[in-house]
Amino acid sequence: MYTVYGDIKSGNCYKVYLLMNLLQLEFKWQHVDILKQEASTAQFKAMNANAKVPVLKIHPNQYLSESNAILNFLANGTNWLPQDPFTRAKILEWQFFEQYSHEPYIAVARFINQYLGLPKDREAEYASKQAGGNKALTIMEAHLSKQDYFVNQQYTIADISLFAYTHVAHEGGFNLSQYPAVGAWINRIQSHPFHQPMALKTTHND
Amino acid sequence: MYTVYGDIKSGNCYKVYLLMNLLQLEFKWQHVDILKQEASTAQFKAMNANAKVPVLKIHPNQYLSESNAILNFLANGTNWLPQDPFTRAKILEWQFFEQYSHEPYIAVARFINQYLGLPKDREAEYASKQAGGNKALTIMEAHLSKQDYFVNQQYTIADISLFAYTHVAHEGGFNLSQYPAVGAWINRIQSHPFHQPMALKTTHND
Repeated sequence: MYTVYGDIKSGNCYKVYLLMNLLQLEFKWQHVDILKQEASTAQFKAMNANAKVPVLKIHPNQYLSESNAILNFLANGTNWLPQDPFTRAKILEWQFFEQYSHEPYIAVARFINQYLGLPKDREAEYASKQAGGNKALTIMEAHLSKQDYFVNQQYTIADISLFAYTHVAHEGGFNLSQYPAVGAWINRIQSHPFHQPMALKTTHND
Repeated sequence: MYTVYGDIKSGNCYKVYLLMNLLQLEFKWQHVDILKQEASTAQFKAMNANAKVPVLKIHPNQYLSESNAILNFLANGTNWLPQDPFTRAKILEWQFFEQYSHEPYIAVARFINQYLGLPKDREAEYASKQAGGNKALTIMEAHLSKQDYFVNQQYTIADISLFAYTHVAHEGGFNLSQYPAVGAWINRIQSHPFHQPMALKTTHND
């Protein structure tokens, strides 16, 4: 059985949790408290030298990190990752967009506000994240104004990657009511019968 | 024939150029001057709404952006991207590492220094990039001390992604002599018979 090492309130970790539920996979969830530096121990760095959650344990001594790499691995062979090479590349295009042009603004603003309580010495950094986050949301809004999902007119792991931090973007100071097509897409994602919100079911917690 | 829109001195664009040469693919190279905002025109944003190079034109009206997505697309079915799902996921793990934990430090420091000439108002930002870049290089050094390439003991697109900005990291103020295993790996990459340096062959320039 897979083990996921992560913090369910981290969007990057939640991506894996959401896909696991959509695929109805069995897994163990091992909570890692990043504020207590639990991702920086020697034991954790033996799993991921970059000291970041999430990490997927596939077998003893076989680990995978980087949330979007984990999604591609788990979704392989399922409807969440179609086989067509161009479709797969478009999914990656949005996942790299997410990690480079979305997460460093929206997730970091949320982290400063929600995890750290917006301390005085991070206020300028927090403010500096707003423009980049709104730029990413504007690009998503334009795309979703013309189609229901990001790639191939179907729910794929590209949507999971972008949903994770977008649906909690208000916790980073972003006003989602300015992005109605994004809001409609969030509702679409949340209406899937196997959808799970950003909170562990206790049976999954280890 | 493929057309690549990019700036050969950008590591993200060079990744595509290098793989195209390794695969001995025919392509046209369309230079885009990012300092002249040529990636921000309406015409360019119709190809990539995120206004970034590189962009690959596959067919008229079929475009792909994000350098690492382009590598996955072009390398599909070749030795640079093995079919095994775990191997592919490990390649993605390193590519997401590159975009999140390497490029924002090493490439941005190089951009500030090399493209912009290290202006006074960017000096603090330039200095702030050094720790993150050295952290990424330290992780690479540890990995390459135990193996010749990043994944599966063979030259893959994971190596191309990391080579692009690493081999010019000195232009961002990084001292590669501190990382001998990285240096040996750079020599290994550069010794491939179809390797091309970060400069356009004039026949490819459009």
